[in-house]
Amino acid sequence: MKYNIPADVPKNKEETYKKNLKSATNSTNHLMLFAGDQKVEHLNNDFYGKGIPPQDNSPEHMFKIASQAKIGVFATQFGLISRYGRDYKNIPYLVKLNSKTNLVPYDKQDPYSKAWLSVGDVVAFAKTSKLDIKGVGYTLYLGGAYEHEMLSQAASIVHEAHKNGLLAVLWIYPKGKFVKNEHDGHLIAGAAGVGAALGADFIKLKVPYDKKGEFDAQALKEVTMAAGRSGVLCEGGAKVQEKAFLEELYAQIHTSGSRGNGTGRNIHQRPLKEAVKMANAIYAITCEGATVKEALKLLK
Amino acid sequence: MKYNIPADVPKNKEETYKKNLKSATNSTNHLMLFAGDQKVEHLNNDFYGKGIPPQDNSPEHMFKIASQAKIGVFATQFGLISRYGRDYKNIPYLVKLNSKTNLVPYDKQDPYSKAWLSVGDVVAFAKTSKLDIKGVGYTLYLGGAYEHEMLSQAASIVHEAHKNGLLAVLWIYPKGKFVKNEHDGHLIAGAAGVGAALGADFIKLKVPYDKKGEFDAQALKEVTMAAGRSGVLCEGGAKVQEKAFLEELYAQIHTSGSRGNGTGRNIHQRPLKEAVKMANAIYAITCEGATVKEALKLLK
Amino acid sequence: MKYNIPADVPKNKEETYKKNLKSATNSTNHLMLFAGDQKVEHLNNDFYGKGIPPQDNSPEHMFKIASQAKIGVFATQFGLISRYGRDYKNIPYLVKLNSKTNLVPYDKQDPYSKAWLSVGDVVAFAKTSKLDIKGVGYTLYLGGAYEHEMLSQAASIVHEAHKNGLLAVLWIYPKGKFVKNEHDGHLIAGAAGVGAALGADFIKLKVPYDKKGEFDAQALKEVTMAAGRSGVLCEGGAKVQEKAFLEELYAQIHTSGSRGNGTGRNIHQRPLKEAVKMANAIYAITCEGATVKEALKLLK
Amino acid sequence: MKYNIPADVPKNKEETYKKNLKSATNSTNHLMLFAGDQKVEHLNNDFYGKGIPPQDNSPEHMFKIASQAKIGVFATQFGLISRYGRDYKNIPYLVKLNSKTNLVPYDKQDPYSKAWLSVGDVVAFAKTSKLDIKGVGYTLYLGGAYEHEMLSQAASIVHEAHKNGLLAVLWIYPKGKFVKNEHDGHLIAGAAGVGAALGADFIKLKVPYDKKGEFDAQALKEVTMAAGRSGVLCEGGAKVQEKAFLEELYAQIHTSGSRGNGTGRNIHQRPLKEAVKMANAIYAITCEGATVKEALKLLK
Amino acid sequence: MKYNIPADVPKNKEETYKKNLKSATNSTNHLMLFAGDQKVEHLNNDFYGKGIPPQDNSPEHMFKIASQAKIGVFATQFGLISRYGRDYKNIPYLVKLNSKTNLVPYDKQDPYSKAWLSVGDVVAFAKTSKLDIKGVGYTLYLGGAYEHEMLSQAASIVHEAHKNGLLAVLWIYPKGKFVKNEHDGHLIAGAAGVGAALGADFIKLKVPYDKKGEFDAQALKEVTMAAGRSGVLCEGGAKVQEKAFLEELYAQIHTSGSRGNGTGRNIHQRPLKEAVKMANAIYAITCEGATVKEALKLLK
Repeated sequence: MKYNIPADVPKNKEETYKKNLKSATNSTNHLMLFAGDQKVEHLNNDFYGKGIPPQDNSPEHMFKIASQAKIGVFATQFGLISRYGRDYKNIPYLVKLNSKTNLVPYDKQDPYSKAWLSVGDVVAFAKTSKLDIKGVGYTLYLGGAYEHEMLSQAASIVHEAHKNGLLAVLWIYPKGKFVKNEHDGHLIAGAAGVGAALGADFIKLKVPYDKKGEFDAQALKEVTMAAGRSGVLCEGGAKVQEKAFLEELYAQIHTSGSRGNGTGRNIHQRPLKEAVKMANAIYAITCEGATVKEALKLLK
Repeated sequence: MKYNIPADVPKNKEETYKKNLKSATNSTNHLMLFAGDQKVEHLNNDFYGKGIPPQDNSPEHMFKIASQAKIGVFATQFGLISRYGRDYKNIPYLVKLNSKTNLVPYDKQDPYSKAWLSVGDVVAFAKTSKLDIKGVGYTLYLGGAYEHEMLSQAASIVHEAHKNGLLAVLWIYPKGKFVKNEHDGHLIAGAAGVGAALGADFIKLKVPYDKKGEFDAQALKEVTMAAGRSGVLCEGGAKVQEKAFLEELYAQIHTSGSRGNGTGRNIHQRPLKEAVKMANAIYAITCEGATVKEALKLLK
Repeated sequence: MKYNIPADVPKNKEETYKKNLKSATNSTNHLMLFAGDQKVEHLNNDFYGKGIPPQDNSPEHMFKIASQAKIGVFATQFGLISRYGRDYKNIPYLVKLNSKTNLVPYDKQDPYSKAWLSVGDVVAFAKTSKLDIKGVGYTLYLGGAYEHEMLSQAASIVHEAHKNGLLAVLWIYPKGKFVKNEHDGHLIAGAAGVGAALGADFIKLKVPYDKKGEFDAQALKEVTMAAGRSGVLCEGGAKVQEKAFLEELYAQIHTSGSRGNGTGRNIHQRPLKEAVKMANAIYAITCEGATVKEALKLLK
Repeated sequence: MKYNIPADVPKNKEETYKKNLKSATNSTNHLMLFAGDQKVEHLNNDFYGKGIPPQDNSPEHMFKIASQAKIGVFATQFGLISRYGRDYKNIPYLVKLNSKTNLVPYDKQDPYSKAWLSVGDVVAFAKTSKLDIKGVGYTLYLGGAYEHEMLSQAASIVHEAHKNGLLAVLWIYPKGKFVKNEHDGHLIAGAAGVGAALGADFIKLKVPYDKKGEFDAQALKEVTMAAGRSGVLCEGGAKVQEKAFLEELYAQIHTSGSRGNGTGRNIHQRPLKEAVKMANAIYAITCEGATVKEALKLLK
Repeated sequence: MKYNIPADVPKNKEETYKKNLKSATNSTNHLMLFAGDQKVEHLNNDFYGKGIPPQDNSPEHMFKIASQAKIGVFATQFGLISRYGRDYKNIPYLVKLNSKTNLVPYDKQDPYSKAWLSVGDVVAFAKTSKLDIKGVGYTLYLGGAYEHEMLSQAASIVHEAHKNGLLAVLWIYPKGKFVKNEHDGHLIAGAAGVGAALGADFIKLKVPYDKKGEFDAQALKEVTMAAGRSGVLCEGGAKVQEKAFLEELYAQIHTSGSRGNGTGRNIHQRPLKEAVKMANAIYAITCEGATVKEALKLLK
């Protein structure tokens, strides 16, 4: 398999970058990202309440899943990694560098999510802690008063990551009062192009919907092509029924050319064993070439 | 007892960190924080007026208490420590790095409390002054226009503290016009999760209330679990009757899993001797395994 | 031919600067800039939709054109260059340092496009990647709340570029609610003067229109003279018919004294072969002294 | 006399600090600060007009007074010191690091007065110019949108001053639309506590008024106690009759525990000889233990 | 002649400073500043249109004048100097460090003109380019939301200039909705005092008008005295008849104590020969002790 190593990965970091990319993608160039940054992004809504198993309230639940399941990377904040990392050394981590809470509605105040720490901090931490950190992540909101700050931070983070042989994943969401429909495929394709222009390795995006509000595989094709050599990861979103989830995932990859997914709630809002199985099923489709049928067997 | 040393504490600072944690918590992992940052936060309201003993008006009152009572740490601003520290060398200090006044209502202007000095300043100061500085503190308001700045500063302060073997305590309060009820347990659990994601050692939070406006021990359970390995400190709040205070404190720890408390007014708004006794009673429950009955005896 | 080497190009970078200028302009001092920054500036509008060939949706389309056609420089974002550069080493690149999306209307929020990376980043990248990077570009909006930031960044970018022997191209557009007519020649001449005061090598500007909304060659004379020793590049704009495009380009240069053009959509919104021919025709007029007739032959 | 040397004055700067404190206070711990920053704060209102002697219009007038009278320190901006310092080497200077004009009313725009230069600039300047610079000053407005910036700058300036053995004087004024009465003693006591928390050596404050708008000696007691080990300097304010001025000054110190005063207009709005006498009288009460009667004799 | 060398000019730069001051003022301490920053400040309005000779549209026109006429310094932006400097090495330059356009009215948005480059950049440039750079200039608007930034930048620029032996000229203008009359002498005297407090060598100010809107020589006396040891330069303003211009200039200096002038349009809005003569006449009055009559002869 040929890997697209960005030109800003220096000679002496090419092997590191390739190793990170290969191990995170099971040598498929597809990434199964287990998203665990919602403790800040959604406060406690995703972790406690009706239909959520009690153990999900503890951050350790996600570490247990990430440690026992097959995943590409577990994306979460630096602080959680610092508190649980010593006990979960086998997890492939991706440090989510920024996060914001959901307290203020997007139409009341333009969102700004600033990087908490630098890529340099992460690189030094990886070295001293010996944890397996494969990359960094950053969320970028387009269309508001802070777009310029976030574009600038994102570009710098991607470049710094590459200079250190790390993967860079961008979450890109157009937001604010001038964005009418966040699931408009053409708009999401625009966001994909921004991610490409920023040089991201992977771009986590909303899923395009058709007029009935259902997944639009054709529209996703525009998106994945517009992303160029940056891989599109479809957002997992709120928890849905397993089969529907896996079928859509399969179509995203095989029909529309997406290169993975970023899933959180559909995994961690289950008891540990079920969560591990669901993660494995997602991984099977994303990185092991499984059919939906094969993946569903893993849930049994 | 097993201590959770964060992974960002480097090898050569592990002993320092462990020593700070053990001595601050009496080897219980519970922290009794004597909060003395109100000279800025509440201006002179907490120190002069009806029902407050005259000597509380002088900042030295708090240093005397902190010096004579059993406490985990005395949290106050750098400037006060610099002016009284030479005469109160036996106090275990925690430098509160930021503070704001109460002149502007939270619903009129989104709060922003910026760090006054850096962790590096504190580390250098501890070295040259030989004062016993065990950690740093920072207040973080969620939900306003400056949330991004404060999240970023908080993450950096926690990380810098750990790199130097210091404890990091975060005060986390959702505030502003989009926060309807600051004592909503689910919201406070969200704040606890933010503190966990930031990697804090301890998180000082509001106490959850039930519909009658009284302490809700069940709701606090959601909070302490959501905080993961970061210890929840319940805010002491305005001065109340001693027995009620100690009973609630006991329940917070033994029923709900909190790991300490941050108390200011309920201690320093008393004449010196009474204040020292009250601090000792709080310490007994928090860090010496005392019952309420045993603690009440100390007040005699 | 005599070249105007800016006085802030140091002695030991004069040869580099001259080489960059000569090769980018075919020793004519005229620049044919192939503009490829629209993936961010216009999101996916310029790359997918009615009248646009399907392959234009992939960023690679522009790299293929830039690689096969005669051009002065291909201006695009760093991230795209980092992802495709290893496979397109023969392209003369100009790194567009800033970009913003079109989500927010100019009259709703004053535009601010911040530099994504520094000139130093570009210089280091050129060295390690061995790509042929001839210069940097920056867009500057005059007339809004962020004018001061952008003027300051622009001045610094031009100076840093010169210190490293690189060309500096500024895109300068008066914008916002106090700008009534962006195609007013006198206003554009003002923008040209700003570019001159910033020391730019080339300034990309809107084309002046007369009262009927058509190209005003006389007004452009005011503009090119006001620009002093900085060369004026006329914006290509939306796709129009080939002959009209080339005739206007010829007049801009030969009647009005412009020193080139910045063209994107009129090139890349065509299938590869046609796009290469169109680029070659533009190049012929701009940098090879061709007549419109001669250039039109190249389109056959 | 025992001096309170702040704990952030390092060992090797203790002598410098003590020397500055002793000489500025005539070994009394009381400071007579000749305030000369009004050229910016009040523009030319304090220096030219009815009842003001013509020579006051020249900045040199203040240097002559400061040079010929007994004073603790002459507080003025760096630029004036740089222009007159070579000719007035005997003056003990305090560099006022920030200033703002009075053009915008406090209720129309929250005030922000930013440091013009750093403490490091002052330290280097003192060394190369050999001028007798004893300290630095900074004005801090509480209660507005920039409170966080000014608190942070103030804390840093006090700490940097101490690290270099210099005195740090803070002017602290609650301001803006949420401050109803700037002469409310309880509010001023709050400001005093903020100064203490910032570690200031001296804090210049408004004078508390009673309900009739007259000096309230009792209220000032709350203030001076709240200030802890930071000395309170009462603002001189607009020019009043000499005897009344000196009597109030005496009461501030002897009844209410203030530790000096900051006087500008009541000194410099007089012809040179009278101004020198008035300064000497103020100094006599503040730093030489004189009675009002004794001080009045100096005015003859 | 005695020169006032600011105390922040270090020993080893005193000769450089004195040389710059003497040559810029013809050893008179009076400065004739040829102002050429309007390409940004007024866009193309001052350079093209009715009553303006066509050659003024090219920036080179000003360089030709500055090269052929007697002037103190030619003040213009760095970028123009970088593009023309190699061909005009005999000009004494003053680098105008900031500029803003006139697109937004002062009462719609508080003005902010940020420094484009640092004094360090200018010093390095002077060294490598060997151009004769005698100083730097900076415009400062008082009375708006960015006053604090500009005061801080101005103070730092003056100090950095002095540390390098360069002259520092400040343009100081009260502006915004709280400034009713920009030609009020008392207000201008306030601006002069601000310039003095900033340590400027020269301060360019508006001319005070009387109630009839005519030059008020008495009011200017208040201004020049308030400026202390900083020299007042009167703004040249819009083009007027030669004799009236020179008579007012003579009165400004000989009646009111101004120390020069800053003239742009009254010079460059003439054909080259006439412009050179006018500059020479202004120089004769400012720096050669000429009478109006003698100066008028130079215009023949």
